[in-house]
Amino acid sequence: MAALFRGSRSVFRWNKHVDFVLVSTRSMASKTPVGFIGLGNMGSPMAKNLLKNGYPVIAADVFPESCKELQDMGAQVVDSPSDVAEKADRIMTMLPSSPNVIEVYTGPNGILTKVKKGTLLVDSSTIDPAVAKEMAVAAEKMGAVFMDAPVSGGVGAASTAKLTFMVGGLEEEFKAAEELFTCMGANVVYCGHVGSGQAAKLCNNMLLAIGMIGTAETMNLGIRLGLDPKLLAKILNMSSGRCWSSDTYNPVPGVMEGVPSANNYQGGYGTTLMGKDLGLAQNTATNTKSPIPLGSLAHQIYRVMCSRGYANKDFSSVFQFLREEEAQ
Amino acid sequence: MAALFRGSRSVFRWNKHVDFVLVSTRSMASKTPVGFIGLGNMGSPMAKNLLKNGYPVIAADVFPESCKELQDMGAQVVDSPSDVAEKADRIMTMLPSSPNVIEVYTGPNGILTKVKKGTLLVDSSTIDPAVAKEMAVAAEKMGAVFMDAPVSGGVGAASTAKLTFMVGGLEEEFKAAEELFTCMGANVVYCGHVGSGQAAKLCNNMLLAIGMIGTAETMNLGIRLGLDPKLLAKILNMSSGRCWSSDTYNPVPGVMEGVPSANNYQGGYGTTLMGKDLGLAQNTATNTKSPIPLGSLAHQIYRVMCSRGYANKDFSSVFQFLREEEAQ
Amino acid sequence: MAALFRGSRSVFRWNKHVDFVLVSTRSMASKTPVGFIGLGNMGSPMAKNLLKNGYPVIAADVFPESCKELQDMGAQVVDSPSDVAEKADRIMTMLPSSPNVIEVYTGPNGILTKVKKGTLLVDSSTIDPAVAKEMAVAAEKMGAVFMDAPVSGGVGAASTAKLTFMVGGLEEEFKAAEELFTCMGANVVYCGHVGSGQAAKLCNNMLLAIGMIGTAETMNLGIRLGLDPKLLAKILNMSSGRCWSSDTYNPVPGVMEGVPSANNYQGGYGTTLMGKDLGLAQNTATNTKSPIPLGSLAHQIYRVMCSRGYANKDFSSVFQFLREEEAQ
Amino acid sequence: MAALFRGSRSVFRWNKHVDFVLVSTRSMASKTPVGFIGLGNMGSPMAKNLLKNGYPVIAADVFPESCKELQDMGAQVVDSPSDVAEKADRIMTMLPSSPNVIEVYTGPNGILTKVKKGTLLVDSSTIDPAVAKEMAVAAEKMGAVFMDAPVSGGVGAASTAKLTFMVGGLEEEFKAAEELFTCMGANVVYCGHVGSGQAAKLCNNMLLAIGMIGTAETMNLGIRLGLDPKLLAKILNMSSGRCWSSDTYNPVPGVMEGVPSANNYQGGYGTTLMGKDLGLAQNTATNTKSPIPLGSLAHQIYRVMCSRGYANKDFSSVFQFLREEEAQ
Repeated sequence: MAALFRGSRSVFRWNKHVDFVLVSTRSMASKTPVGFIGLGNMGSPMAKNLLKNGYPVIAADVFPESCKELQDMGAQVVDSPSDVAEKADRIMTMLPSSPNVIEVYTGPNGILTKVKKGTLLVDSSTIDPAVAKEMAVAAEKMGAVFMDAPVSGGVGAASTAKLTFMVGGLEEEFKAAEELFTCMGANVVYCGHVGSGQAAKLCNNMLLAIGMIGTAETMNLGIRLGLDPKLLAKILNMSSGRCWSSDTYNPVPGVMEGVPSANNYQGGYGTTLMGKDLGLAQNTATNTKSPIPLGSLAHQIYRVMCSRGYANKDFSSVFQFLREEEAQ
Repeated sequence: MAALFRGSRSVFRWNKHVDFVLVSTRSMASKTPVGFIGLGNMGSPMAKNLLKNGYPVIAADVFPESCKELQDMGAQVVDSPSDVAEKADRIMTMLPSSPNVIEVYTGPNGILTKVKKGTLLVDSSTIDPAVAKEMAVAAEKMGAVFMDAPVSGGVGAASTAKLTFMVGGLEEEFKAAEELFTCMGANVVYCGHVGSGQAAKLCNNMLLAIGMIGTAETMNLGIRLGLDPKLLAKILNMSSGRCWSSDTYNPVPGVMEGVPSANNYQGGYGTTLMGKDLGLAQNTATNTKSPIPLGSLAHQIYRVMCSRGYANKDFSSVFQFLREEEAQ
Repeated sequence: MAALFRGSRSVFRWNKHVDFVLVSTRSMASKTPVGFIGLGNMGSPMAKNLLKNGYPVIAADVFPESCKELQDMGAQVVDSPSDVAEKADRIMTMLPSSPNVIEVYTGPNGILTKVKKGTLLVDSSTIDPAVAKEMAVAAEKMGAVFMDAPVSGGVGAASTAKLTFMVGGLEEEFKAAEELFTCMGANVVYCGHVGSGQAAKLCNNMLLAIGMIGTAETMNLGIRLGLDPKLLAKILNMSSGRCWSSDTYNPVPGVMEGVPSANNYQGGYGTTLMGKDLGLAQNTATNTKSPIPLGSLAHQIYRVMCSRGYANKDFSSVFQFLREEEAQ
Repeated sequence: MAALFRGSRSVFRWNKHVDFVLVSTRSMASKTPVGFIGLGNMGSPMAKNLLKNGYPVIAADVFPESCKELQDMGAQVVDSPSDVAEKADRIMTMLPSSPNVIEVYTGPNGILTKVKKGTLLVDSSTIDPAVAKEMAVAAEKMGAVFMDAPVSGGVGAASTAKLTFMVGGLEEEFKAAEELFTCMGANVVYCGHVGSGQAAKLCNNMLLAIGMIGTAETMNLGIRLGLDPKLLAKILNMSSGRCWSSDTYNPVPGVMEGVPSANNYQGGYGTTLMGKDLGLAQNTATNTKSPIPLGSLAHQIYRVMCSRGYANKDFSSVFQFLREEEAQ
């Protein structure tokens, strides 16, 4: 694995020996304008990091006020995705959900109405892998190239350019995109065909949710059985029960510092976002007829939590949700 | 954590600064006979390791033929638990389930009928923590001391003295027991009051089962979505989906070597045993009114697997159970 | 089925043609004293109904004040179960849980310390079938006969003598018990060997819980999809989705009158009680290695509800628990 | 409810007093040609029943050989949905899944390319309610009217014109459709706006699946506890555990006659079809953020069954799937 990570701005690539001598004109023409559509909590700091790295940014958002700060930093703000498509040959999108992506790409003022041949389109939204594939087909019809590159890491990582990008798309186009990813993230993982970035992210987050709920109920059970929570966490972490949620992000207040459970479950990754990701995982599982018994139940638990007052708390608050609150 | 492990025969102790100057006569009188009751797949190699370390062993088993090999190595074989109790002041038990433990300790020919005052009783069976507490109370009435010390590690670890002991009981008696554990295991964890060894083991194994099923369904989903299984495992293991089942014991054939999934799920930890542990975890959760939604479902999945032909396969065979076998 | 119910005080018996000519002296000696131990919310009205039917009642309870009202109605109150056993040759018990039953029967002042040979012992508590069997064995050693006869119907049915008794025990002793049941209940079902009354009750209540949660989530989903709840209930009730919870006890406010959902989930069968029954069902399933995937999940859902403020609401409040409360 | 069912060909209508004096020209012009697209196991007998009732049928199917029998009975077979649209002003469709429906309505040779203004389009496929709504919008743009009318009842009911139609769409168009439904079904339920027929069917089938699995695990648990299965079924059916799966379609061999469990789970409603319906229910629940914990788990159980050899058995075979087969 030694070669996979280069410093803190590493690129992970799996078992491929690709010769990048024939780089495209896009990646050679560095510092040509980059389009950015979707300037929300995540998109805005990502676009800023492109600016900071010297890329001219052509920005658009349905809420023009979202663009104000970016404009002050030197970005050119235009009215619609199609306007962005006229001015940039690399375009990133960062949108809330599948319908927004469909609209921004294929809607009446969408990118594809005016996209130039050879444009590289990179979507960092978290959406259904099937929608990513549809967008790729639609882009290809217009002579453009689509890649999916969802991120993990949250707003903090977006601001400090520490995101992880999981990228799906043609490998020969990867170089041109990677140049941009390394301005915004610390890790870039090439996952395979279009849609595989989304697939990898959904798989990871589903297992994360399962591990978190499992850790929460295990810790709660152990506490009820009289075990000290810190001791139990140590035992788990040196044993086969170990997982990221037990050793890095323990959901029990008092066990670890610097995690949301130590701060009343503020910050971190919200229950609503986890619910959204699990809904996407559920949809892909249903549509591919893949059984996901624990993933489905995890989805349902986060769904109920969203309506019981946990929507805006970190997803590790499932510990609080499960534990006894009242004397029985 | 540096001080917690001393060489490969380490002792883990949590946040306690105990002075062991006044060691008991039991531990000073090293090489006095040790009783051993229950010479099955686990008990037999454990008793052998005591013999190899120079301890005279007084053995008993309901199946006298189980004692033959041990007898050839020099152990003294007697007829019943009560006979063992007459001859040894440290006794270990390694039995299949709670009813066996109750019988061996409190039955008509049980240890407690003839136990000497001050005898140290150590039970390494995996049983309900509540039964461990009952045995401790019964032992105390006879002037004896009971500790629970279930193990993790399987037959292989029992043979090579690499077991991990999770120990519950009075801390001042721990030294006398630890001397024996280090003949049979590589790690000893002191967990707290009587029953807490069992509690820790059940908690770990419940989270292990959840992580394993979660990994199996996540890997299967990813494969259906077109991801390469080795790549997916790497992505999970560098991300928040990481767990022991994904990075150390991956259930997908071809991803790792030297694990049961690489050998048609032979060896390892059987589905039946996992089902038993989950049943115990379920019982303790029910009796303490602790919600364990994923743990319960994991229990049910292993229960169904036991009746669908997976009883004797390693518990990672849940990947095989969940995946599509037939074209649909 | 015509012969199974005789008027409103019917007796259900399955496929048996038993000749009751040789009735025991107990049942012939009608109006001899009946012992009653456990005068809580259920036991008190049951004992009153025995008094109303002319039976002298010998009563005992750990809280003597519980006996006051009964005493005023003419019952003789004694100090302990053993005192009851001295004075009555038919004794009923109605206690909160298994440990209470074990104490009342086999404790130091328990019934079995002074029970007369031939005494009929009938336990109407809802407990683990295995404990019922243990009590039967212990009673038999003393020459007494034990039957389990848990009830369904709640406090209202107890007051109006409309309970349903599910009875397990020797069929030849059934007549003597039936005479008492018909003073307190409207239906008596003979279920088979000792413990089968408990088994039948737990099975029924587990399926009830599954049907209730299933109805709640189905109704909620339909409402979200824009269906009128009354219409949806009608469609389900004329179709294969029909169940007792949809057609007799619908959990959605406004669909039916005279049910707890029409009265803010007051009255009815509390979530705590359902949680207890599901815990018993879970234990019997675990101990018999029976897979109950939906039953387990139903158990977990009621367990979580108990700690989230639903403990004292009717179990149909699961509809309220699951539905969205906040705008998302 | 008296007025809701008229003879065996009843029409159920909810709380509406609609004056049908001004019937449309479509329904007045009875015996005008009816289009029928999708002549599979269900569609073929449905179309035959239209022929038997004197309606000229214009048929199309992707597999022309499916039309042969219908052609021999007098139907006119044409090449494509658009050809049907040219010749009929009432068209029914009966297709396997959402993508087929989208293709048949909005594809290059789809109905909507040549549909006449005012045509009534009725889709009896079981699909996502959201797709039904999309089709209604697309139809409306062309001046046509779309209704969803999924059925329950299976191939047998299709042949004997005993289907139940659950209908969603504009109430003023319902009369024209009802005339056709009564040729093919015994019950017609008007459910509300477009999509509500699908919603009602998915809700019913989800609750059905939950009730069936619940009944299977309850019966299995009771049998393990020593209860006679017929007796247990009787007790459940006179108690609050009662549901359609316990009293009408019991999954335990030997309890009832004339049901799939009495015939090695042949016939009936296949596990694959139930899996499909549950997948649709899951998708609608995910998309509307409705928690369906038991529905999700039921979905997963049927999903696993499909890959474990139960795909073509009746869905009540879940009893066989759950029960212990091997000695443990």
